[in-house]
Amino acid sequence: MTTELEQLAERLRAFARVRDWEQFHTPKNLAMALAGEVGELVAEFQWLTAEESGSPDPDALARMRTELGDVTLYLVRLADVLGVDLVEAARAKLDENDRRYDADLYRGSARKAPPTSNG
Amino acid sequence: MTTELEQLAERLRAFARVRDWEQFHTPKNLAMALAGEVGELVAEFQWLTAEESGSPDPDALARMRTELGDVTLYLVRLADVLGVDLVEAARAKLDENDRRYDADLYRGSARKAPPTSNG
Amino acid sequence: MTTELEQLAERLRAFARVRDWEQFHTPKNLAMALAGEVGELVAEFQWLTAEESGSPDPDALARMRTELGDVTLYLVRLADVLGVDLVEAARAKLDENDRRYDADLYRGSARKAPPTSNG
Amino acid sequence: MTTELEQLAERLRAFARVRDWEQFHTPKNLAMALAGEVGELVAEFQWLTAEESGSPDPDALARMRTELGDVTLYLVRLADVLGVDLVEAARAKLDENDRRYDADLYRGSARKAPPTSNG
Repeated sequence: MTTELEQLAERLRAFARVRDWEQFHTPKNLAMALAGEVGELVAEFQWLTAEESGSPDPDALARMRTELGDVTLYLVRLADVLGVDLVEAARAKLDENDRRYDADLYRGSARKAPPTSNG
Repeated sequence: MTTELEQLAERLRAFARVRDWEQFHTPKNLAMALAGEVGELVAEFQWLTAEESGSPDPDALARMRTELGDVTLYLVRLADVLGVDLVEAARAKLDENDRRYDADLYRGSARKAPPTSNG
Repeated sequence: MTTELEQLAERLRAFARVRDWEQFHTPKNLAMALAGEVGELVAEFQWLTAEESGSPDPDALARMRTELGDVTLYLVRLADVLGVDLVEAARAKLDENDRRYDADLYRGSARKAPPTSNG
Repeated sequence: MTTELEQLAERLRAFARVRDWEQFHTPKNLAMALAGEVGELVAEFQWLTAEESGSPDPDALARMRTELGDVTLYLVRLADVLGVDLVEAARAKLDENDRRYDADLYRGSARKAPPTSNG
């Protein structure tokens, strides 16, 4: 069965092919484009308080949704040209985090435990 | 039917809940964590030529895969706390790009047409 | 008179020259390296509250200082290979912001006025 | 003697004060704003080849200069609210890199030696 991410990847392949843009879609360039879109996403949150960021007004939420869409497109395209399965990569990382961050040891502490990451 | 991204989102919810980390997972903080992980991903490509980035050695590819996993985890978690469906948001953006970048008009030109984006 | 930024730029030129790294220091690559370092800087702040970020503990402040140093090095190097004077560019942008954000009109409002930027 | 970066920092302090924007200028928020601007800067380079990035056309160079100005403003402001001297931080990091990357050992190799950084 084809998953929804594979469908997106296929649409992006066709999108690049018919415009002859495959030449620009090197992993290096796509990583930069992803960084650019994440910069736009972060900018949506920069002046919001923690509380405000959790309940954005409808216009702000619409802009965040658009930026999340852009980030997803570049992430899916980058993974596709590299031949990486995003969901498998994410599961592998989450398995590792499950082992690494013992629930009892790290409860309530962000200082020693960057949530969901070893970043 | 539950999709694979929804399953990831649910695992991340449980991951945060049992560690009492929901308090740290504001959209603002998650957007920053996403930016940090994308920075690590970009760093994997920074000294590679365009060609090298398309055929990374196994060690580099393994590191890229790990970073792609991290980026996916934070992206899924951020979308989840905002109540945004990533795949729908990506499809909506791609629909818009299909209309915006006429295939004949933009063929082969990256200068006027940032591929897959209006960024 | 040589300014302190010009002295830094000259040290970075020599640093690259004696290691034969000028070949890697294209503006494109340096922009990526800058993005990677800014990702590390952002990561230092991601789980801190607004208040905590204003009074980091000595260890955190030392790490922030190190990351700020890295960001400065790549910013100075990137501007140097592009032939851009950073301070002049910053002054020109600040002049524009002074005109754009009328003090009386924008007082106390971040929503309509991204402070110091049109970003 | 007051350096040009100190003069910029002072202008930014006044800029924030007269608009009552100091409340928004927490280190956390400023780090996000810096990341957003660096995203815009990276986007200027994303579809350029390495060669093209070294000789941008006048319009592209003007946009790069504007983005470099924005990045500098936020970097100077962030360092100022944290009480960090950017030039001292950069020199300290460059001293470390001088020791770390032996010129003979790392000559011509980017793979083992991320130029100017331990990032």
